[in-house]
Amino acid sequence: MDPSAPAAPQRALSESGDIAATLYVCVTCLAGEDRETVPRAGRRLHDGLVEALRRKGEASGFRIAEAECLSNCNRGCSVALSGPGRWSYVYGDLGEAAIDDLLAGASRYAATADGLVPWRERPMIFRKGVIARIPPSI
Amino acid sequence: MDPSAPAAPQRALSESGDIAATLYVCVTCLAGEDRETVPRAGRRLHDGLVEALRRKGEASGFRIAEAECLSNCNRGCSVALSGPGRWSYVYGDLGEAAIDDLLAGASRYAATADGLVPWRERPMIFRKGVIARIPPSI
Repeated sequence: MDPSAPAAPQRALSESGDIAATLYVCVTCLAGEDRETVPRAGRRLHDGLVEALRRKGEASGFRIAEAECLSNCNRGCSVALSGPGRWSYVYGDLGEAAIDDLLAGASRYAATADGLVPWRERPMIFRKGVIARIPPSI
Repeated sequence: MDPSAPAAPQRALSESGDIAATLYVCVTCLAGEDRETVPRAGRRLHDGLVEALRRKGEASGFRIAEAECLSNCNRGCSVALSGPGRWSYVYGDLGEAAIDDLLAGASRYAATADGLVPWRERPMIFRKGVIARIPPSI
């Protein structure tokens, strides 16, 4: 839930190559852990993604950005993929084990014009963990 | 789910006033009804919203658009609210009884600059039925 929704959701960006899309990672997600856990599960997922993207060292076409609450708290950790002219997607049930698949899925998403990656080319975490999607802006 | 995701999600638009936001309604949603039901629950919700908006006859600041599958099939009917520079929201557990609240909630959303309606001003269907949200494009 987002009763105290912040006006400035993104603080840090990690970019790679020509940027066509953004992978938002909810850094406030507890994913069922104790509220005092530091760093939080969402923060660990974000930082792991940034580090893994840096290690790859190749153009991936998307940036990683922090978000505070994607309102998918029951199925966190959560990420969202969006980009101009594209369908946006929210995925849940994620953890650090999903990092490689997340980077691969985000790259495929960024390589499309409309955000629609063919079903068979989507990583299993995207097929099973889709929470919702939103059409491109009109 | 959206294995056969269409490239052209919107077919019909109903507009009212200066358009700042779009209320997408999943018109393919069955909401648990039999697959042969015609019209489908999502179509009935969409058409009811269009008719109710027409009857109000006042500027509401948003358009209603059809979408085919918002990937929230387990908690349909579903709608999404989005607009330039705004957080996007997906809501579920909706039916025709929610039409008046949906129009009121969409108007409040359209009246914001960032899509963040104060918690207390959100209709109960939005507080309880939020599925996910996505930050504004960066």
